[in-house]
Amino acid sequence: MRLLLIHVESLHYEAKIDTPIAVEIEEEEREREFGESLLVLYTTERQDEANPERSAELASLEIENYMSKIGDKPVILFPFAFLVSREEKSSSETAAKMGKLLRTAIGGTRVSAVPFGWYKKFSITSMGHKYAVHSARVMPD
Amino acid sequence: MRLLLIHVESLHYEAKIDTPIAVEIEEEEREREFGESLLVLYTTERQDEANPERSAELASLEIENYMSKIGDKPVILFPFAFLVSREEKSSSETAAKMGKLLRTAIGGTRVSAVPFGWYKKFSITSMGHKYAVHSARVMPD
Repeated sequence: MRLLLIHVESLHYEAKIDTPIAVEIEEEEREREFGESLLVLYTTERQDEANPERSAELASLEIENYMSKIGDKPVILFPFAFLVSREEKSSSETAAKMGKLLRTAIGGTRVSAVPFGWYKKFSITSMGHKYAVHSARVMPD
Repeated sequence: MRLLLIHVESLHYEAKIDTPIAVEIEEEEREREFGESLLVLYTTERQDEANPERSAELASLEIENYMSKIGDKPVILFPFAFLVSREEKSSSETAAKMGKLLRTAIGGTRVSAVPFGWYKKFSITSMGHKYAVHSARVMPD
């Protein structure tokens, strides 16, 4: 799994078009605005199939480690299919369940998630400091 | 080289902190706002060292192909060190010269570039349609 972590000043998204694998969403999830947060863009890879739970645990350690640099922030999980090329991606089943696995691994109550399987319009504003963007790759073995 | 192509409604950046490899910039390049454009976030990888010119050519073909879906737009080249993990990155020399190589490969006059080697605050707003985000990986061989 590849992770792109951004300490954001704000995030706005709007779920615009559903795909065949889209989750059902409540009306209030269709469009949301967040203030200062840790935005976690993630893309699952083929290697995650072997043990997605382990990938989620390793990702949560990366997130925790990053949070030690930027301070404790609410987390926004953003399923983002574009950190790898098509042939590197996991199945959509693994991608679909990663949000829940990450939420469990991270724990705590300050975790939000952007809906899976939708084409989303988004607006991302970074904080712009030295550690405002961080990337990592985690693999089960 | 990994590419993250975003059809943006707008992009704002501000070069905040220079690193030891930062390019010198004019005052008017320190902060800029763009309207609808094709934003090209790119990260050079070790594989690009062998033939960075070829990587740039392949990237320009990806950009051209993507542009055939979203229409002809001004291009913004954004050197972004975060699409791969540290051990996958090219040397900073190769990263530094890729902007110029891409500009040459793409050709035309409607190409802008965000300064290399600076920590940047940025605000990205996507168009949100089906093809608004695209990713690709190109390699010289």
